[in-house]
Amino acid sequence: MDTRTGLPVVGMVGGGQLARMTHQASIALGQSLRVLSVSPDDSAALVAADVRIGTHTDLAALREFAKGCDAVTFDHEHVPNGHIAALAAEGVKIYPGAEAIVFAQDKQRMRERLSELGAPVPRWRAVSSAADVVDFAASLAAAGTAVDASAAGGSGAGWPVVAKAVRGGYDGRGVWMLGDAAAAEELVATGTPLIVEEQVPLRRELAALVARSPFGQVAAYPVVETVQRDGICVEVLAPAPGLSEERAVEAQQLAIDLAHALGVVGLLAVELFETDAGIVVNELAMRPHNSGHWTIEGARTSQFEQHLRAVLDYPMGDTSPAAPAVVMANVLGGPAGGMSIDERLHHLFADDPGVRVHLYGKQVRPGRKIGHVTVLGDDMTSVRARAARAARRLQEGE
Amino acid sequence: MDTRTGLPVVGMVGGGQLARMTHQASIALGQSLRVLSVSPDDSAALVAADVRIGTHTDLAALREFAKGCDAVTFDHEHVPNGHIAALAAEGVKIYPGAEAIVFAQDKQRMRERLSELGAPVPRWRAVSSAADVVDFAASLAAAGTAVDASAAGGSGAGWPVVAKAVRGGYDGRGVWMLGDAAAAEELVATGTPLIVEEQVPLRRELAALVARSPFGQVAAYPVVETVQRDGICVEVLAPAPGLSEERAVEAQQLAIDLAHALGVVGLLAVELFETDAGIVVNELAMRPHNSGHWTIEGARTSQFEQHLRAVLDYPMGDTSPAAPAVVMANVLGGPAGGMSIDERLHHLFADDPGVRVHLYGKQVRPGRKIGHVTVLGDDMTSVRARAARAARRLQEGE
Repeated sequence: MDTRTGLPVVGMVGGGQLARMTHQASIALGQSLRVLSVSPDDSAALVAADVRIGTHTDLAALREFAKGCDAVTFDHEHVPNGHIAALAAEGVKIYPGAEAIVFAQDKQRMRERLSELGAPVPRWRAVSSAADVVDFAASLAAAGTAVDASAAGGSGAGWPVVAKAVRGGYDGRGVWMLGDAAAAEELVATGTPLIVEEQVPLRRELAALVARSPFGQVAAYPVVETVQRDGICVEVLAPAPGLSEERAVEAQQLAIDLAHALGVVGLLAVELFETDAGIVVNELAMRPHNSGHWTIEGARTSQFEQHLRAVLDYPMGDTSPAAPAVVMANVLGGPAGGMSIDERLHHLFADDPGVRVHLYGKQVRPGRKIGHVTVLGDDMTSVRARAARAARRLQEGE
Repeated sequence: MDTRTGLPVVGMVGGGQLARMTHQASIALGQSLRVLSVSPDDSAALVAADVRIGTHTDLAALREFAKGCDAVTFDHEHVPNGHIAALAAEGVKIYPGAEAIVFAQDKQRMRERLSELGAPVPRWRAVSSAADVVDFAASLAAAGTAVDASAAGGSGAGWPVVAKAVRGGYDGRGVWMLGDAAAAEELVATGTPLIVEEQVPLRRELAALVARSPFGQVAAYPVVETVQRDGICVEVLAPAPGLSEERAVEAQQLAIDLAHALGVVGLLAVELFETDAGIVVNELAMRPHNSGHWTIEGARTSQFEQHLRAVLDYPMGDTSPAAPAVVMANVLGGPAGGMSIDERLHHLFADDPGVRVHLYGKQVRPGRKIGHVTVLGDDMTSVRARAARAARRLQEGE
């Protein structure tokens, strides 16, 4: 409790853009987010009043940080699970808890648990040798579930297979397409703990975002379509165009069931593949998620406020959309040179006064997520075109 | 320019809730508002990363504060006009400038200038003696413009008259209803520089909010109705219900004309009386204004972002409403005792998950503005009822 205001203090471990936008949301609730940041120049550290410098792998720093916090939560999944368990054992209200967040930290544990729960997942296997990978590919070929190998660039029946690092991957990192036994051999030799999965014949990717409080109240956002390029989310369309009501409810229900079953407190983003046969779970995240940035203006309650409400055990906010069509487009750092980011912003504002801009205060580096734009409107096609054009202007200064 | 981000630095003098919400808006633009605050516990100082402690009447503190700012602006009108002029002469980009903000600082200068410009104003006079006030009341009686004296509680023809302190009044302070010569005598004796005005037979109060950039671009928000109680704004209805398109455009055009004529840079809020005969100007404010808080969720661009865009000479943002009916209700500090503000918030969130809450981090004191709530919807009557109910819950904990 902040004695100056009579309102709670939430601490967020990590100083990235998620913490930055959570701080923005906390201001409306009369709070000021406490941020544990590696550097004073991190995205959230540039804007928050209460910043502690420290690393998320340092238990002593986490312990000190948590003192006086009514709840502690995360900007990322990289806090060691044992540290989270240790803090909880000492009485810190830390959400999501160690026994929940492990499923967002460890893809093998996630796949095991989801399989146990009967949730739809791709065929997968934990592997420790190239022979395991070859065997898995052969099993896919035998089951006839693999996509057409020649079309997908594989070297034969069952190939390619998708290999994922069990821990630490994000934004396309930690994911490899293995076309043959030789590629498998090479990857396994690096010593990275791996799982392999079938390449799902997807139509598109979707995401279902829910929040759950310790009390057990759950709120679900409309299901969105996420558009990826090189493994990085570039666009989110809300709601997912042409998604049947039946499938939308199925995806929301799946996310709600998982939030309860895994004991998640806070946000749970379920990344989904949509196939001809239905939906399968790709990844889980338990924090504000890129697929939910559209909610800042596009939903009555933003995901950032919702996450704060959840970890503080406040009743959940209204997740209704604020417009029939909402598109969020990520802004990646463009090539060096040319117009400054400030000049680009001038041009964008002159070009389209209705675009909502979110810049993260990050140094521009090629390919780095430096911000996002959101456009609201009645017609998805025109809204999408405006968002893409705006993101391009900020990215390339064209 | 912040060298860490390549984006501009705006400094705001004053650490109240307007600076707090401007900081929130600045975060989206990749910035972090620099705040000059009297105390580290001020509303904005609790949430902003870059807070300098100092008083707005200290020219040396202002000069130091302005160093490195791309633009300096204000949370209130209490910075001495000469200090603003001095900083501008030294090359500081300070908006609105001294020659504009004087009309928001000095009611006599404002009335003089508006009269010169032919803008609609109440009959008024600068007074220095009780005899001046008596003479003014007599002139109203002679002109037949005074409201019915018995109905308004005055003691005779021409009374009551409205007396206003030339400088320093706000939220009902600095305004007096004078019922007779004796009351005038008493007030004049305090030595406060005064103007007197006719009591306008108003139907209701309106506000027209515009922003103007140094380049001269102007953007106007929908005209709103403001509802006052004891001189304090308690509710804002956007758009003003039942206002004819013709009168709405007239009010917007008046605000635009005044912004240009007075050389305003940043926001200009024109508080208006609507009478049977038309609109007349009550007050001017040149900063984010309580009548514009609804824009945070209720318009595509909030007044806070718009003010930043204006003082930085960015192109103006879209002022379109985000819903057919938007109501903002102020939350005042309630009586001591009873539920804490945090408990009240729990109850409110449980009662209405769609209400948007903004708490200012202020100690609760009876009658003090400690936050506001905003509700969006299709029907003004139900939206208004929800907003009033929400404000009451936070105020009284009922």
